[in-house]
This record gives sequence, C-alpha cells and structure tokens, in this order.
Amino acid sequence: MSATPAKTDFDAVDQLCVNTIRTLSMDAVQKANSGHPGAPMGLAPVAYAVWNRFMTYDPADPLWFNRDRFVLSNGHASMLLYSMLHLAGVVESDGRKPVTIDEIKRFRQLNGVTPGHPETHLTSGVETTTGPLGQGIGNAVGMAIAQKWLAATYGKPGYEDLFAHRVYAICGDGCMMEGVASEASSLAGHLQLDNLVLLYDDNNITIDGRTTLAFTEDVYGRYKAYGWNVLKVEDGNTDLAAIAKALNSAAETKGKPTLIGVKTKIGFGAPHKQDTEHAHGEPLGDEEIKAAKKSYGWPEDKSFYVPDGVYDQFKANIGKRGADANAAWKAKFAEYKKAHADLATQVECIQNKELPAGWDKSLPVFPADPKGMATRDSSGKVLNAVAKAIPWMVGGSADLAKSNKSRLTFEGAGDFLAATPAGRNVNFGVREHGMGAICNGMALNGLRSFAAGFLIFSDYGRAAIRLASIIERPVVYVFTHDSIGVGEDGPTHQPIEQIASLRAIPGLIVLRPGDANEVTEAYRVAAESKHHPIILALSRQPVPTYDRTKFGAASGVAKGGYVLADAEGGKPDILLIATGTELPLAVEAYEKLTAEGVKARVVSLPSWELFEQQTQEYRDSVIPPSVTARVCIEMLSTFGWEHYAGPKGAIIGMRSFGASAPLKDLLKHFGFTIEKVMEAAKAQLKK
Amino acid sequence: MSATPAKTDFDAVDQLCVNTIRTLSMDAVQKANSGHPGAPMGLAPVAYAVWNRFMTYDPADPLWFNRDRFVLSNGHASMLLYSMLHLAGVVESDGRKPVTIDEIKRFRQLNGVTPGHPETHLTSGVETTTGPLGQGIGNAVGMAIAQKWLAATYGKPGYEDLFAHRVYAICGDGCMMEGVASEASSLAGHLQLDNLVLLYDDNNITIDGRTTLAFTEDVYGRYKAYGWNVLKVEDGNTDLAAIAKALNSAAETKGKPTLIGVKTKIGFGAPHKQDTEHAHGEPLGDEEIKAAKKSYGWPEDKSFYVPDGVYDQFKANIGKRGADANAAWKAKFAEYKKAHADLATQVECIQNKELPAGWDKSLPVFPADPKGMATRDSSGKVLNAVAKAIPWMVGGSADLAKSNKSRLTFEGAGDFLAATPAGRNVNFGVREHGMGAICNGMALNGLRSFAAGFLIFSDYGRAAIRLASIIERPVVYVFTHDSIGVGEDGPTHQPIEQIASLRAIPGLIVLRPGDANEVTEAYRVAAESKHHPIILALSRQPVPTYDRTKFGAASGVAKGGYVLADAEGGKPDILLIATGTELPLAVEAYEKLTAEGVKARVVSLPSWELFEQQTQEYRDSVIPPSVTARVCIEMLSTFGWEHYAGPKGAIIGMRSFGASAPLKDLLKHFGFTIEKVMEAAKAQLKK
Repeated sequence: MSATPAKTDFDAVDQLCVNTIRTLSMDAVQKANSGHPGAPMGLAPVAYAVWNRFMTYDPADPLWFNRDRFVLSNGHASMLLYSMLHLAGVVESDGRKPVTIDEIKRFRQLNGVTPGHPETHLTSGVETTTGPLGQGIGNAVGMAIAQKWLAATYGKPGYEDLFAHRVYAICGDGCMMEGVASEASSLAGHLQLDNLVLLYDDNNITIDGRTTLAFTEDVYGRYKAYGWNVLKVEDGNTDLAAIAKALNSAAETKGKPTLIGVKTKIGFGAPHKQDTEHAHGEPLGDEEIKAAKKSYGWPEDKSFYVPDGVYDQFKANIGKRGADANAAWKAKFAEYKKAHADLATQVECIQNKELPAGWDKSLPVFPADPKGMATRDSSGKVLNAVAKAIPWMVGGSADLAKSNKSRLTFEGAGDFLAATPAGRNVNFGVREHGMGAICNGMALNGLRSFAAGFLIFSDYGRAAIRLASIIERPVVYVFTHDSIGVGEDGPTHQPIEQIASLRAIPGLIVLRPGDANEVTEAYRVAAESKHHPIILALSRQPVPTYDRTKFGAASGVAKGGYVLADAEGGKPDILLIATGTELPLAVEAYEKLTAEGVKARVVSLPSWELFEQQTQEYRDSVIPPSVTARVCIEMLSTFGWEHYAGPKGAIIGMRSFGASAPLKDLLKHFGFTIEKVMEAAKAQLKK
Repeated sequence: MSATPAKTDFDAVDQLCVNTIRTLSMDAVQKANSGHPGAPMGLAPVAYAVWNRFMTYDPADPLWFNRDRFVLSNGHASMLLYSMLHLAGVVESDGRKPVTIDEIKRFRQLNGVTPGHPETHLTSGVETTTGPLGQGIGNAVGMAIAQKWLAATYGKPGYEDLFAHRVYAICGDGCMMEGVASEASSLAGHLQLDNLVLLYDDNNITIDGRTTLAFTEDVYGRYKAYGWNVLKVEDGNTDLAAIAKALNSAAETKGKPTLIGVKTKIGFGAPHKQDTEHAHGEPLGDEEIKAAKKSYGWPEDKSFYVPDGVYDQFKANIGKRGADANAAWKAKFAEYKKAHADLATQVECIQNKELPAGWDKSLPVFPADPKGMATRDSSGKVLNAVAKAIPWMVGGSADLAKSNKSRLTFEGAGDFLAATPAGRNVNFGVREHGMGAICNGMALNGLRSFAAGFLIFSDYGRAAIRLASIIERPVVYVFTHDSIGVGEDGPTHQPIEQIASLRAIPGLIVLRPGDANEVTEAYRVAAESKHHPIILALSRQPVPTYDRTKFGAASGVAKGGYVLADAEGGKPDILLIATGTELPLAVEAYEKLTAEGVKARVVSLPSWELFEQQTQEYRDSVIPPSVTARVCIEMLSTFGWEHYAGPKGAIIGMRSFGASAPLKDLLKHFGFTIEKVMEAAKAQLKK
C-alpha cells in the first residue's frame, strides 16, 4: 500500500494497456472456442487501475510476503487475470509457471497454466482458486483478516509497514447474489476491515439475462447496512480517473471495508453483443471481434497483439513500484530480524510453511481412563496445545464454540476483533459457509487457520471445504457432534452421511479419532499437513481412554488404521473394524470373544485416506485379505464401507436418518449395542 | 387472512395464555433435561399474537388448503410451536399425531411427536422441519411464492379468497446470519411477496454470547435494501398491542414482504438467566424456573399447568375464526367446483398429492439415433412435457437456465414475477442454497417444485437437499454438467464426488440416465415420487439414443438397473456396468467383446437407490453374484462402487479432481476410452 494518494490522470498509453487486456481476453476465448470474454472487456479499466496505480506487488517475486493481494472472485473472467499476470511479467514461483503469451494462446488446454477458472496451485501470481461464485469474496475477507492479524502480531513499533498490505477483490452480480458472500461481507463490516476493497462489476447482466429477472435489491444499501464504506463509479468503461479516485478514497477510509460499485458494460466495445448476456459465456465470433477491435482503434487482423509501450508501462509502474517496495522491505526485514529475532523466525516459518521447532513437545498424552471423556473435550485440550505451540494458528467457530470446545483459552489468546486484532479466536458467527471461504483466505495469506462447528453443518460450508482441497491448503476443521450421539436435537442435527460425503472429496483427509490419545495424534497429522485440509470428526459423548501399554500405540493414527488389540499370536479369525466412538463397542466385543476363546482383532481405522496411502503390505498386515470374517462398526452411513468389510463382512451402521431421543435410547433403537455386535460377530464366524 | 385489522387490545386472559406458553416450554425442557427454553419464553407474546389474532387456521383441520402458514425458522425454539399446537388443539392429520400434554411431557423422547426440532412428517400442524438455521426463512419464502402462484392460477374472479392465505415466520439472530436466509430474503423482496411476514427475534444473544461478538450489522437496513417493509417493536416481552399493531401494518402493506423486528429478552422472566446465553440451550434448573414462575405470578410448584380459561381463549379465537373460515371456504369451493370444474380438479389433485389423469400420455419417446443428444437436451424436452402435463409443476434455475435447459417454454409458461404471478419459471438468481430451501417451501405448500443448476453447485444447496429428504417431499433437482464432461471450465466446475455424496443421503433418489429414453423414464420416476426428492444428473455432452428394439427397454430405469444388452443365452461371463454418459463406452466394449466371442452383458444402473429397493431375486438376475468379472464405468468418484464391482471387479472412475481442457483431451487423460475399458475387461476375464 502506498502512503500517498495515487495519481488519477491517465493518458493514451494507459488506454492502450486497457485495450490490450480486452483484446487478449477476447482473442484467447475465441482461440479456445470456449470461455467468458465479456467480463474481462468490461473490467479491464478497473483491473488496470488497481494493478498499475495501486497494488504494491513485485512481479519478479510473486510470493513476496507483503504484497497486496488481488482476488478475482468472478473467476470465469480468468482472462482478465491472465492478461494482467502476463502484461505485468509475473515470473515463476513455488513451482507454478508464469503466464506467457503462449500460455494465453493455450487458454483452457490440458496441462496448461491458463485453465478456465484461475487455480492458485497451477499458475504463478494467482492468489486463489475462484469460479464457484462468492467464494473469492470470502477468500478476500480471510486474507484481510490475516493481514490485520499479522500486522497486530508482528508489526512492532517502527516496523508496521512490514505487514501492511491490502486486499483488492473484484466480483460480479453472481457473487453478490451468493449467501457465502453475504456472510463474509457482514463479518468484514463487523471486523472493520479497512484493508479490503471490493470492486463490484455492476453490469446488470447474468447468464440468464438482465438482473431485473432476479436481482433488484439495493446492493449498495445492503453493504452500507453491513457497515461498509460504499462508493460508486458511474462509467467504468472509460473513466479511469473516476476509478482511481474511488480507490484513493478507499485507501483513506479507516475502520470500514470499501465497496466500489463500477457501472460497466459487459463486452464493452463489441458493437452487437455488449451489454447483453451473449457477451458473457461464449466466444464473440471473428466478425464481432474485428468490430470490437475497430471500436478500440485496434489493428483488426492482429491477434494476441501487445502494442509497443504496453509491457514498458507495466514495468515502469507496478514493476518499479513493487521492486522498490520489495527491496525496501527486505532491507527493513533484515533490521527487524535483529531487533525481534523470535518474531522474525516465526515470519520466516510462515513464509516457508514450516512449523516452529519442537512444536509438538507439549502435546497432551492422556492417561488410561475407563470413564474417559468426549473427543470434543480432548480436542479442546489438544487444539489449545497445538495453537499455543504454533503462534500463527488462528481460527474459530461458527457460533457454538462453547459446545465444540474450540475456543483458545490460553493466556493472551483473546478474541480477534477490530479493537484487538492480535486475538486468536475469530468469532465467525452463524456463518458456516462464510467461515470456510474465509479460512481458505487466511490460509492463503500464511496463517494456519481452523474452523469449528457441528459436523452436520459441514453441509452448509461444503463448497468451501472442497476448495480448501483444490487450493491445497491445510485448513483444519474441528467438527463435533459427529453422529446420532447428538441425541435429543434429532435428525436435523445428527450427521449420518456427512463423513461419507467428506471422504469422497479428493485430497481431503478425514480423521475420526476414537479416544483422547487418538485425538492428539490426529492433531499431529493436521499440524504436519502441508497440502491437504483436515476434517476432525469428534464426539459429544464420552469414550474411554485406552491403556496404550496394553493396546496398540495411538501413533498408528498417522497411518490411518492400525491394530488396536489383537489375538494372541496375531492370527485373528475375525476383524472388528471401527472408528471414533464405536471403538469401545469393538473393544468390548473383542474382550468377550477373547474370553470365549475366539481369536479376534480390533482395527482402529480413524482415516481411510491415510490408510489408503500406506503400502499394500502394511494394509494387508492390518486387514489381512484372508480374514473375511469382519464386523465394521460406525454409527454413520454405511456408504463406502464395503471397501473394508469385503465381500462377506458385516457392516453395522446407519441406513436412515436419526431420531430425537436420549442417546442411550438411540443406541438401542438403531442397534449400536454389544449384543448386536456379538450377534454379527457370531454370524460371521459361522460363515 | 382477515380483511379487517385485528384488535390490538389485550387483557389478563391473554397474558395468562402467554405465560402458559412460557411455562410449558420451560417445564418441558426441564423434564427432558435438554432443549432450549429461552427463545420460547422471549417469543411467547409474538406467537400468541400471531396465532390468536391473525392466523386464519382451523385446528380441527390442520391440512385445510387455505390455512395461513406458520414457520418457526429457529427450530430449536420447538417448545414454542408445540405449546401453540397443544393450546390451539390441533388435531391429528395425515397420520401425524397431535401434541397432547403427555407428548409435551415426553419432549425429545424416542417415538414421540415432540422432537428436539420440529419435524413436519411426524407432528400434526408442524408445517416444515426446521433447525438448521435460515432454512425456515427459505421455506417461508417458498410457501409465499406458492400462495401467489396458486392465487394467480386458480383464483378466478369472485373466488380470489379461496387462495388467499398468508405466511408467518419467526426467526432469530442465527437465521439472520445465514447466507441461505439472505438469498431467500433478497428474492422475496424482488418478488414483492406481500403475503409474507417475518418476525425477527432481535434479542442480541447467540450461543457464544452477545451478538456484539460477531453480528453488528444493521439488519433492518439490510432488509430495506432487499425491498422489504421494515417495522420494529421495541418491547416484545410485554407489549402485545405493539406486536398486533405491527402485524396489522404488515397486513395492509402491498408490494413488499414485511420484516418485524421484535426486541425481546431471551428467557424473559427468569431472573438470573434472562438476557444471557445461559437461557439459550440448556434447562433453566428447578430454582430458576420457580423464580421465573413467581415473576409471572404463577403457582411455583405446578408443572405443565394450563390455567382455566386458556384452552377456551384459543378456542374462542383461532379456533372459531379458523372453523368459520374453513366452513365458508368449503361452501365456496363447492361453488367453484361447479364454475371451474377443471381447475377445481387440479386443486383437489394438489391436496391429494395426485397426478392429473393421463399425465404421462405425451411423454416423449425418442427414436434411435447414433448421434443422439446431450441428456440436458432430452431433459429440457421431457421436463417441458411433464410440466405441461402437471400444471402445478413450478420451478426454475439458479441462473444457468439456458445452459441446463430447464426453462419451461410451452405456451403460457412465462416467468414467475411480481407482475406475472402465474408464471411457471421461477428465476432464482445465483442463489443455489436459497433455491433449495424455497423449493422445499413450495413443495410443502402443494406445488411440484423443481430446481435446476449445474451438478457441481449441489454443494452450495446441499443442506436444503437433505431437508427435502427429511420432509419427504418430491422436489426434483435438474442438475446438468454432471462430470468432467464440463470440459474447459475445469476442476472448480467439474463434479467428481457430488453424486457419491448425494447417493449417501438417506431417502434421496439419484438418477443418472444414459440416453434420451432413460431421461424420459427418469422423469416418470420423479413425477410419480410422493415422498422422495429426486436428483437428475444430466450431461453437457451428447450420448447416442439406443434402439430399444435391440436393447433392453428403458422402462427398466424404474427398477434402478436393468440389462441393456446381453450375451446370447443370457449367461454372461463378464458384466459391464455403467451409468449416464459412460453407457456408450460399456456398449462399445460389449460389441467388441461379442465380436470376439466373449459373452458380455451391459447393465445400465441409473439409480442405485431404486435398484436396492428391488427384490434380491431381481437384483441377482441383473447382476448375478456368480459373475465376478465386472467392469464398472462412471466418470465420477469411485467412492461406493465396490458394492457393485464386488471383490474382484474393476472400477473405472475418477480418483482426483478434474482439469481444464476440451473433453476429448480429458477423456484420454483420465482414461475413459474404449481401449482402457477393453484392457480392464480382458484383465477381468483372465482372473
């Protein structure tokens, strides 16, 4: 961010740059014969003004810690972003390739870096993966929260500007209609995130036609009600100065995020399609492209044309500003390192995605206890230990923190609020979807974010959870009340199919620990994860803490599944496979069977995904293919369990929604009793 | 609804009734040792005023067609609703039991009708199932849309009042924070639903404490921006007259839905807990209950006490008003039946959940065509035929209608808008979650609602889809772009795990038809479903239309799976099992194998749920257990497929996210080619 207002006069070279963005976008869509030309054409002036006059960003160092962030929430306008990345000359970073002119020509092709929607793990300079509408707004709010937290935590006197970046996001009408954006925007206003500017492409068009069909609310009034600073630019197609003035005004506004509504014409310059839905999601066609180019005063027959002076203009502006700022930052950070060595080490860990040395020294080890405790309770203890050890672990709950025990209570943790931005507990409110999108943004801006709630409400935030996996960030979800163990609240609050549904998401790691020490090990997996988000499924009801001198070590959790208790000699005739709160049933059956002389084994299988990553040899050693007598127990949907039950095994699970009643009655009603397990085991042994 | 304003003076008997609601609620929670006493105590005056002064509702006929609807969106306040149902004397209906005083004493117990959160399929008079916050607001908007549509369609001159009910909904701060409520409320304002009153329990408390932690936006300003009429009652605890005046004002307001903010104290009357989060989600305790009763002037030691005069007060007000209105309605409907026989028959069909006679006469039968068409295209044709035949089938798309071909285009279909409320196409805007909750409400108010979008965005509306199943209403989801067939839009838009996730929801029926005639049959299943919501997964890319004189009949879709093509003699050595767009791969492999002398069978398996409902005998006849050589092909997550692949079968599916590229490149990249299928088949035959 710049201390002084940016210049607001623009000249012919600036206009040349704007039209280059437009023409690159339309040419790329046309060549791909697929994509969205209209939004980049309408938004080119906005993006240009933001990048070349406002963003402090070093194209030669796309991961520079203090860069301003740019989020394209309407990800279908990806060619806008690719044009900017290309023209600004953003180089390779972290294995992610740059957007060359050839990559623009290969828009939307296999193994390219210019996919249909921006993907942060593929393309250098893409800050987040967008396309599912509204998510980018949530991400931007998360990034802004992270900046506030970083500044408050690390910005010691004299070094405030080391952590002083801003977040610019662009969105369209589609984003504005999505509830996830509403939730995130309400929280942004509450938290007074004045480091956030949202530029709203107010073009009155969606895929189905004019917004008058479905969207006539007063967006500006709504954002005022959220507590935002609200500005409007009447002509976003040509009036670069007005855009810059609004951005200056945003920069000067304290205590409020800023919404800048920019009236644009979708497909600006395309004489027959502009201002209609036909410019939205299909190539313009060769003739219309020629006509549009003519309207810009462009050579009609040149494609992917970057006129002389355009690259230089970017170099001279965002390039130079960024390089200077980066150099100054590096020099100052060297000083900071001397003055605040410990904090500087933390900042370096954040940048390198490392954990603090010895972070796991104080992880709780729980003594054996037949009475035990709910895994939500052990989770509360372990989460606190982990977060205390990883100072940049920041997160919170969508309300319910008292129930899901996710509050950080150690000294100095505090609430993250406008007045206390170094607080570690973010109160997300009853906004599960917003929480997910925000946590993705926090993670993208370096924090180890965590999100908590009841497992049933994972459904509300599912789209954001999926994106955590696509962006390859280790967001940790603390989901309690993970079965009909919810009891009296009834079927609307009892997860049945949620765990199966989450297990089905590629890249996500689901853990359902079965006692307090498995909880500790599950958090170890979570903390050490670099690229995979983690779901922790935790109980409301108590489970015993096993005596690990007699049972398999809880460190087996890291392998997803392990032998918890075994037949003498290790050659079982029957396997009892369970997760989470059903582990005690398996153990009890094991003890009964053993007393009866049956050779039984208990397999604790807290994470299918981790187990499947193990060698075939290991997996076969835990679940021997030759032992086909198996009883699988999980108080959740049986969906997917055939994989472990095998062709002959029994699955004790849920095949319907739950019911409202005290848990003891539900257990009997739905058949989660030792009698039923023994019955199934005996039947298996007879096969 | 009443034509004249309701009286706004209240006396001691009214106050007695209000305190009865409060004390029943706190007693029930205390006895259950579980539940939420605070909201019913705060909201008792609001509910009382709505029920006894405003609602036109006949407790003796809870399914009376023209009843006003009452929705408790903050379903955790269920004792409020149960108290009302009990005191008003709502009788049994449609197999759903009434709330007796014994049932109140059995609050939250197994096999009761007073579950923790209201469940419409269990309890007479409960209009919808609520608890997941915000959903009830969406349901209420859907009910209001349905009323507007019914009135416009059936309310012929002189008979307008046959279809003139109103919708009252109550919500809390939690609902107000949820994006689903934002989406639905924005659409309600756009559609000018002046038949809708939302009473907002503005008590400043959530589970985690005061709303200042997370929720400081100007809710009233936000609703004004949505285009609502916004009113406020400053003292909702004692000022019944102010509540009634606001409700009168709402009734007089045309062209806008009304929000009435009611300032209340959660747990009003409980001296130590009122106005704190401790009154929210736990029993008050015996001492506090005594103290609260004392503050009401109540006998402190009486539990579940209904003073003399209370039942009578309800009888004399809502009871009499409802009975009179119902009787008048029945008389007038008899006239209507004479004047508009056809329309009256439709209204009776709606009430009886029947389809029009001969509804399926004009369902398309598609001729064989090797080129075929995308199932989204055949879906568009069949949906139009079905909707034309079922006049009260009303729905639409969350934008994207042009892409998912869900627009009803037959003569007179039109758009459902404020000015054209008989339109059949609801333009939901980019509001997938709101759409789901709204469609549930439309279905609860008698319409056959349908909701359309891209399959990937089922994630956004998943919580509402689950509720469609819990409420047992046959909402139809038309989800296109159902695989990596999406192509260039890339992984954020390509469903992988969505179908597995939907298959895991109890009660939901997922259909993935494989050609145009399977689409027709899938819609037949959907139309005939009375209690199960339906997911139709449809393609962007074309598939051949099979020659059914040579292949198994498409009517097999109703059984979930059937033999599409078989080995001569019907004794196959290998099964090729596929769904949707992968059917052609199975057929091509079948033809190649047959040419090579291999006995192969193609099983089309469009619906796992329907298949599992068939007899074991039928299932074994389609998928013989003895044939273990199997190749399952579905261009989606393999999760769950072991069930059909069996212990030895191969599964060709997706094990990662997709990628952005033309489909032909993706097919090769991810291995959905005839070569790969043949390779797998050959390997199976060697086993």
